[in-house]
Amino acid sequence: MSTVENTTPFNGVASSTIVRATIVQASTVYNDTPATLEKAKKYIVEAASNGSKLVVFPEAFIGGYPRGFRFGLAVGVFNEEGRDEFRKYHASAIHVPGPEVEKLAELAGKNNVYLVMGAIEKDGYTLYCTALFFSPQGQFLGKHRKLMPTTLERCIWGQGDGSTIPVYDTPIGKLGAAICWENRMPLYRTALYAKGIELYCAPTADGSKEWQSSMLHIAIEGGCFVLSACQFCLRKDFPDHPDYLFTDWDDNKEHDAIVSQGGSVIISPMGQVLAGPNFESEGLITADLDLGEVARAKLYFDVVGHYSKPDVLSLTVNEHPKKPVTFVSKVEKAEDESNK
Amino acid sequence: MSTVENTTPFNGVASSTIVRATIVQASTVYNDTPATLEKAKKYIVEAASNGSKLVVFPEAFIGGYPRGFRFGLAVGVFNEEGRDEFRKYHASAIHVPGPEVEKLAELAGKNNVYLVMGAIEKDGYTLYCTALFFSPQGQFLGKHRKLMPTTLERCIWGQGDGSTIPVYDTPIGKLGAAICWENRMPLYRTALYAKGIELYCAPTADGSKEWQSSMLHIAIEGGCFVLSACQFCLRKDFPDHPDYLFTDWDDNKEHDAIVSQGGSVIISPMGQVLAGPNFESEGLITADLDLGEVARAKLYFDVVGHYSKPDVLSLTVNEHPKKPVTFVSKVEKAEDESNK
Amino acid sequence: MSTVENTTPFNGVASSTIVRATIVQASTVYNDTPATLEKAKKYIVEAASNGSKLVVFPEAFIGGYPRGFRFGLAVGVFNEEGRDEFRKYHASAIHVPGPEVEKLAELAGKNNVYLVMGAIEKDGYTLYCTALFFSPQGQFLGKHRKLMPTTLERCIWGQGDGSTIPVYDTPIGKLGAAICWENRMPLYRTALYAKGIELYCAPTADGSKEWQSSMLHIAIEGGCFVLSACQFCLRKDFPDHPDYLFTDWDDNKEHDAIVSQGGSVIISPMGQVLAGPNFESEGLITADLDLGEVARAKLYFDVVGHYSKPDVLSLTVNEHPKKPVTFVSKVEKAEDESNK
Amino acid sequence: MSTVENTTPFNGVASSTIVRATIVQASTVYNDTPATLEKAKKYIVEAASNGSKLVVFPEAFIGGYPRGFRFGLAVGVFNEEGRDEFRKYHASAIHVPGPEVEKLAELAGKNNVYLVMGAIEKDGYTLYCTALFFSPQGQFLGKHRKLMPTTLERCIWGQGDGSTIPVYDTPIGKLGAAICWENRMPLYRTALYAKGIELYCAPTADGSKEWQSSMLHIAIEGGCFVLSACQFCLRKDFPDHPDYLFTDWDDNKEHDAIVSQGGSVIISPMGQVLAGPNFESEGLITADLDLGEVARAKLYFDVVGHYSKPDVLSLTVNEHPKKPVTFVSKVEKAEDESNK
Amino acid sequence: MSTVENTTPFNGVASSTIVRATIVQASTVYNDTPATLEKAKKYIVEAASNGSKLVVFPEAFIGGYPRGFRFGLAVGVFNEEGRDEFRKYHASAIHVPGPEVEKLAELAGKNNVYLVMGAIEKDGYTLYCTALFFSPQGQFLGKHRKLMPTTLERCIWGQGDGSTIPVYDTPIGKLGAAICWENRMPLYRTALYAKGIELYCAPTADGSKEWQSSMLHIAIEGGCFVLSACQFCLRKDFPDHPDYLFTDWDDNKEHDAIVSQGGSVIISPMGQVLAGPNFESEGLITADLDLGEVARAKLYFDVVGHYSKPDVLSLTVNEHPKKPVTFVSKVEKAEDESNK
Amino acid sequence: MSTVENTTPFNGVASSTIVRATIVQASTVYNDTPATLEKAKKYIVEAASNGSKLVVFPEAFIGGYPRGFRFGLAVGVFNEEGRDEFRKYHASAIHVPGPEVEKLAELAGKNNVYLVMGAIEKDGYTLYCTALFFSPQGQFLGKHRKLMPTTLERCIWGQGDGSTIPVYDTPIGKLGAAICWENRMPLYRTALYAKGIELYCAPTADGSKEWQSSMLHIAIEGGCFVLSACQFCLRKDFPDHPDYLFTDWDDNKEHDAIVSQGGSVIISPMGQVLAGPNFESEGLITADLDLGEVARAKLYFDVVGHYSKPDVLSLTVNEHPKKPVTFVSKVEKAEDESNK
Repeated sequence: MSTVENTTPFNGVASSTIVRATIVQASTVYNDTPATLEKAKKYIVEAASNGSKLVVFPEAFIGGYPRGFRFGLAVGVFNEEGRDEFRKYHASAIHVPGPEVEKLAELAGKNNVYLVMGAIEKDGYTLYCTALFFSPQGQFLGKHRKLMPTTLERCIWGQGDGSTIPVYDTPIGKLGAAICWENRMPLYRTALYAKGIELYCAPTADGSKEWQSSMLHIAIEGGCFVLSACQFCLRKDFPDHPDYLFTDWDDNKEHDAIVSQGGSVIISPMGQVLAGPNFESEGLITADLDLGEVARAKLYFDVVGHYSKPDVLSLTVNEHPKKPVTFVSKVEKAEDESNK
Repeated sequence: MSTVENTTPFNGVASSTIVRATIVQASTVYNDTPATLEKAKKYIVEAASNGSKLVVFPEAFIGGYPRGFRFGLAVGVFNEEGRDEFRKYHASAIHVPGPEVEKLAELAGKNNVYLVMGAIEKDGYTLYCTALFFSPQGQFLGKHRKLMPTTLERCIWGQGDGSTIPVYDTPIGKLGAAICWENRMPLYRTALYAKGIELYCAPTADGSKEWQSSMLHIAIEGGCFVLSACQFCLRKDFPDHPDYLFTDWDDNKEHDAIVSQGGSVIISPMGQVLAGPNFESEGLITADLDLGEVARAKLYFDVVGHYSKPDVLSLTVNEHPKKPVTFVSKVEKAEDESNK
Repeated sequence: MSTVENTTPFNGVASSTIVRATIVQASTVYNDTPATLEKAKKYIVEAASNGSKLVVFPEAFIGGYPRGFRFGLAVGVFNEEGRDEFRKYHASAIHVPGPEVEKLAELAGKNNVYLVMGAIEKDGYTLYCTALFFSPQGQFLGKHRKLMPTTLERCIWGQGDGSTIPVYDTPIGKLGAAICWENRMPLYRTALYAKGIELYCAPTADGSKEWQSSMLHIAIEGGCFVLSACQFCLRKDFPDHPDYLFTDWDDNKEHDAIVSQGGSVIISPMGQVLAGPNFESEGLITADLDLGEVARAKLYFDVVGHYSKPDVLSLTVNEHPKKPVTFVSKVEKAEDESNK
Repeated sequence: MSTVENTTPFNGVASSTIVRATIVQASTVYNDTPATLEKAKKYIVEAASNGSKLVVFPEAFIGGYPRGFRFGLAVGVFNEEGRDEFRKYHASAIHVPGPEVEKLAELAGKNNVYLVMGAIEKDGYTLYCTALFFSPQGQFLGKHRKLMPTTLERCIWGQGDGSTIPVYDTPIGKLGAAICWENRMPLYRTALYAKGIELYCAPTADGSKEWQSSMLHIAIEGGCFVLSACQFCLRKDFPDHPDYLFTDWDDNKEHDAIVSQGGSVIISPMGQVLAGPNFESEGLITADLDLGEVARAKLYFDVVGHYSKPDVLSLTVNEHPKKPVTFVSKVEKAEDESNK
Repeated sequence: MSTVENTTPFNGVASSTIVRATIVQASTVYNDTPATLEKAKKYIVEAASNGSKLVVFPEAFIGGYPRGFRFGLAVGVFNEEGRDEFRKYHASAIHVPGPEVEKLAELAGKNNVYLVMGAIEKDGYTLYCTALFFSPQGQFLGKHRKLMPTTLERCIWGQGDGSTIPVYDTPIGKLGAAICWENRMPLYRTALYAKGIELYCAPTADGSKEWQSSMLHIAIEGGCFVLSACQFCLRKDFPDHPDYLFTDWDDNKEHDAIVSQGGSVIISPMGQVLAGPNFESEGLITADLDLGEVARAKLYFDVVGHYSKPDVLSLTVNEHPKKPVTFVSKVEKAEDESNK
Repeated sequence: MSTVENTTPFNGVASSTIVRATIVQASTVYNDTPATLEKAKKYIVEAASNGSKLVVFPEAFIGGYPRGFRFGLAVGVFNEEGRDEFRKYHASAIHVPGPEVEKLAELAGKNNVYLVMGAIEKDGYTLYCTALFFSPQGQFLGKHRKLMPTTLERCIWGQGDGSTIPVYDTPIGKLGAAICWENRMPLYRTALYAKGIELYCAPTADGSKEWQSSMLHIAIEGGCFVLSACQFCLRKDFPDHPDYLFTDWDDNKEHDAIVSQGGSVIISPMGQVLAGPNFESEGLITADLDLGEVARAKLYFDVVGHYSKPDVLSLTVNEHPKKPVTFVSKVEKAEDESNK
């Protein structure tokens, strides 16, 4: 993974390159993946026309983050409406690769941007919360599957494995992603740091104030730019459903009540907030990233470099894919099949 | 094997597709393979005219399941009548490919159905209990050879290997088969699950009540439709032979005594019995399969997806063909020869 | 693990040994672990006085199975009542080893029975759904932690690893356990079969009718006795809580409404139901197990013996403990600490 | 396997060593393994007192060769008497290692002979037809499990794998075994030849005249001494059972009718019959083997040496044990368990 | 190390225990260790009289944090004044164990508090930045040496090793420490989490605003109480010296200028700021810790429990002491010493 | 090679086909190849007029088997007479293809028989001991060159390679050959078995009694008809030569002494001797082969089918022609030639 020669101008000469980056703080069009893709297109075009070279979307933008859904779940209890809800949710998810991925690759190419897109991926009947990466050349670079879902997500999403922890070495810096509370996993972050991440994308569904502290801490800890993208959703963006639980908004289920407040933010390697957080509306958050800041920050603290202590603390990352069944002959073909 | 693009409507959009499927619960015409093919034709035509898109026949429908035969066998004892009985049984078996296979392909094509046919295959002088697969386009898709025969079957049939464990990705769902007590092999079933089986065909000769429990369990375990097809045979369907052992029918050897009671059944992924079991007569068992049930079922349990534990439990399936002798040069040709 | 010499009378001479076994179909005393232990004591004494040598309790008998609880969980939403509910549930769980475990060992010893007990184990702040094993000599033999929780259980319980998959070779047969839907995991079952399980305990919370099919199938597939133990609980056994979801009982929240209907059952290796299922009351389910049935069943089917096909299908079980952090020096002590 | 330094006088200097060898042509005491061991002891003592250094027993001497048994088997039919018959047969089989193996090792040591003993081994509930090897030092050397049972044996015995194909390099020559119709398997014989077998033991249950041709052919083909040991059994040696099929003796079921006629024989590497065949009575067959004959024979034909053609014909022997389930951690212990 | 039985009330019953804790935000008396100890005594007495059970001092409180010192250092240049400055600094440091350590143990005992004290330790002529731990029973529990100093600290302090990473299991919770930018080391924090830390002490010299984000992030990440203690120092607290470099205060070198602004803070496991930060004065920061918050927080996130992913990410902590010279004959003694 | 569709009546319907076959037990006319061909013609006509469809000649019938010749050879010694003797022997050998081959093809066609002829083939100045195959249609089908000559044959004949191991699928069964002690090579025989040989021709020069045992063993092992053809020669059939060594006949060098005693024999797949052995005279040995015997025999033993164990024992046959010099530009042509 982690592609490309490391002799890019940025890494080599380090004359201060400025890269414009944009976060799209917007809501999924629920139960309508084609419309969601259209919405993505609109924002990518707008960001690119502003000169952005990197566009980052929130977690689960494609497929949707089912905030407040319960899928009829309770311990030891099943429920037909919940099953049906899942079938609909499964239907909105996408295959990777697949036609939607091709469309996104085309969008990245046409608009000449790196694109990081949160999506719900389906592999058979198990869903994964995935970040997809695309290049300005219109290529699908690869994906990261969230390793560990949070609370009720565990009932609807599977767990990723170590085979999809990419960091791509691009001309605008080394690019990777941690999704939502993966940002709370110190060992996962360290794996990204060890791959040299410079443009640390954090597609998330956490719009809390505490989240801002974590983002700022990570920028400093990792010595990298942090780009946190969260959906901004109103009550009316969601389908109508009696099973919802909007804890904090229970009293106010009006159409314009805010269900996901965003808080997308861009922070520099030294902990300077460059843009956002925006807690108030759908829209673009844009900043110019001075890539020279990375080196400046690392003089004092380089988490996997001079400030590591490998004789005492060493992390092992198992990147082997984990599959319950392996077909020994015709391996590549068999693997493709077992993934359908 | 396991063919076709994974972008079929069923897997993609998952608007609830309904597929009509039929099991043929009928007896072989013993020692008369052409007549058996004629009988197959009659039922395929009838099922297709009812709108079925999938027709499944029992184990060994072609060639016959020699229930109660002993082939003169006892430990360490040989017997000329038994040898001769085997010669006749061998004569009723078919080559794959061969003229009977061509005829079945033609029948599937003319009637526009997927066809799963149990047959006794001969490869040299070793017989195999095989399931044959055909497409509505009139193609022979391939075969599955039973891996492990049961008790006395082991004296007349060989063992299949890992090279014939197909699951076909078709527009009506992913199609494969487990024959008779292969259905009791948890590792074999898991191999099928890992290939994504949705239409799990179980040609069998087991007409017991316990079999019903296994079928229901498999539907739930695999999250798939189970179509179990068993022959319904009367005493008079069998050739006359003094060596038979019809344990449960010993007192009643009249012509109309039931020798194989059928019990063919169709079950949904959530364990709902959709059609059958029929323990009383020859005939068709038909049900409409709502393919959306698969996703509904997988919300709670996905045996090779979110509910697997591959870091602890991993199955390896060796799909290499196993041959006692391999001819290195002119491989394909040599293989053909060694198979004659 | 999996202890003891293999020269026990049972395995050796196989003169038909009869073993009496009892399932305790009873409800946890919620939020009161000492009272739950007292209740366990009462039933163990009763079973032993009836001559039972093996007593099996349901899943989560100690600590409780929080049926219908939601812990305030929904996707992406948090809730203070739910957090507090978890704190209480955590308080009812037990350390292993710990004082409750010692008490259970003493009970097994005093009553001269093998005891299999479902319990909620706490390891730090992560809970595990565990089966505990005790010998008539008053020893705690070890434990099995459920590998994969089901739906909302995943939000409150962690996942076990391969280091706790014991099968104990005892004078009354080889003893192990699969908890609830682990019984649907074909690879896990196969691991138990490979260790020679003969007394297959299935502590569960699944009281459905489909469960009965799975139990019968497993008895036949594994060629072992299956002892499925499920709690029988009324509405009034549960603490009062507004967040419950008792899907099927929504209309009838009276105190005597059945919330968990039991269905505990004992089945022989040939699929004969020996006792139960009881869907109507709390109580003991007892049967005499003729251990000679195992050999009789295996003549036709031995799932990891003559009916396996290891050249094609081979399962690997990784029994290494999985820990996020390993302390290299003074290993045992460090491990103890990290487990506190 | 194939143990011991190859610097024994026999292999090295080849001054013509004479070794006395004895075959025990006798019947199992059916359903009484302790009595069978006593009978073995009597013959071993007798052979040793005659100066024999090698004693070879027939196939299945311990546990018994159930000639004529049908275990109630017919294709697709089950039978309770047959199951019970199997349970008894299973009870007569022995664990390897185990107390009976220890007793045999002691017998070999006390009588200062190499001992090759046919036995029915039980591993869980699957039986194997096994040859056991013991040294004059009173050690159990190891075993060979029959790879492929014949006809109805396949319903009661499992298949061995490549991990038990030993040839032991002893001071009296290289010692190995092929059981019954394994002697018809040219690839298996070649594996033994390639390990240098000189004392080719053929415990068998085939007492036919054609068998004599095969033994003579093998002696010449392999350039080795062949020692074929077959039971001599009368009707009265067998338990009474209505299910027997003694084809050729059907008319004459008297107590003194011969059921297995023996034909044990010892042949030199050049095809000279040194002792036997005895088709008439229980007893010892003894010959003096001039080990120098091996070299004399190989001048003209050395099947895996100068007369092989490895650029055209090469055999691969897979000696890996085949297990359906492998436990990765604590490997040796786990393997022991899974073998119980 | 990491002592005490795990059967404390807190872990067991979890009735909500409240513990009062105090941070001492105060300055070293530079170049006067006895006076510094007196100052420590004063604050410990005050905190204890307020009911505190835990008192935490800043990094290097004993020995002093030489903020702004340059020790005459520049690349490739030496300087006699700098050497002399180091001699003075070395003189203020303490031996561990030693008389100052005994005095501190006595203070903890008399005031019945757990005490965590930042100190400069001397081991020969190498200095270490160390945290010392004391119990209410008047015992010195042990120490943690900072693993990796920051920038110019590396010229005056050595690096700790893995043998001093204690977490003490106490009746008021599990207690450990990370010093200054060790708090930025994700692998070090994870080692503490794995030992179950609940009272995470962070003696520091970082008084920045970004530090607050890191503390809040750690509380959430670790699910633990964070107690960050930083000195509050004015210009006049420091000895007079021409080589100082007070970057941000260059214009204002008056006596009352703030040189270290404190910012000590106490945060709950769910990210709630319980006391502080105080950026304005020397003094005590006190809060009541509701230990039940730990369980409430872990429901959603348990960094080394249910939210770890050990099959992918595994950290190894080498706790062996690292010594340049090991005397082989005294191994056990050497290990004991490194633990003191 | 090994031609023809597999849809022949014999393999298909298996109504019991009877085929008459004849072995020609006769001597070469030494040093007179045209006369030898005339003699061949006489016997072929006779066999065909008796209804034979298959005629098999002995090893080296054309060119002669130089029994007792020494070609003046001794270790390290050369001899002009021997050279000259070889020149004469080379002159009697034939090219393949060539005029003698055409003549033989014509004979087969005219007499409507399959013909297997032993011949000495010359390829440049290296001779090969070859079996030639001809069809009733008058075609030369191909050849088999003996892989490994025996003792002194190695000084006058070369070694064949894997490119000439044909088995022809003919309407009267699958036809192939093993020459003389190739019949002792278990791997070579297995290659023939794997190609499905049913009519196993064994042209030989071995007239010993032990040979009969090998032939009978092979019939059983291979489940095929064995047709062993050996010359019957008197002293007077040989040219006069002082260098002869007729070991066993040294005392009796009279003209009528038997030098090669024949022993030609035909054996069925179940080991029944159908005709011969004739040890007394030149002449035809004829039998009717009931091809149904093959299936009857395979019920119990199918050496490369159900009785093989390919997961343990697998043979590789390298069929590439072995040539010391390969001309790259003419690859296809070279291969074609080697097959003629």
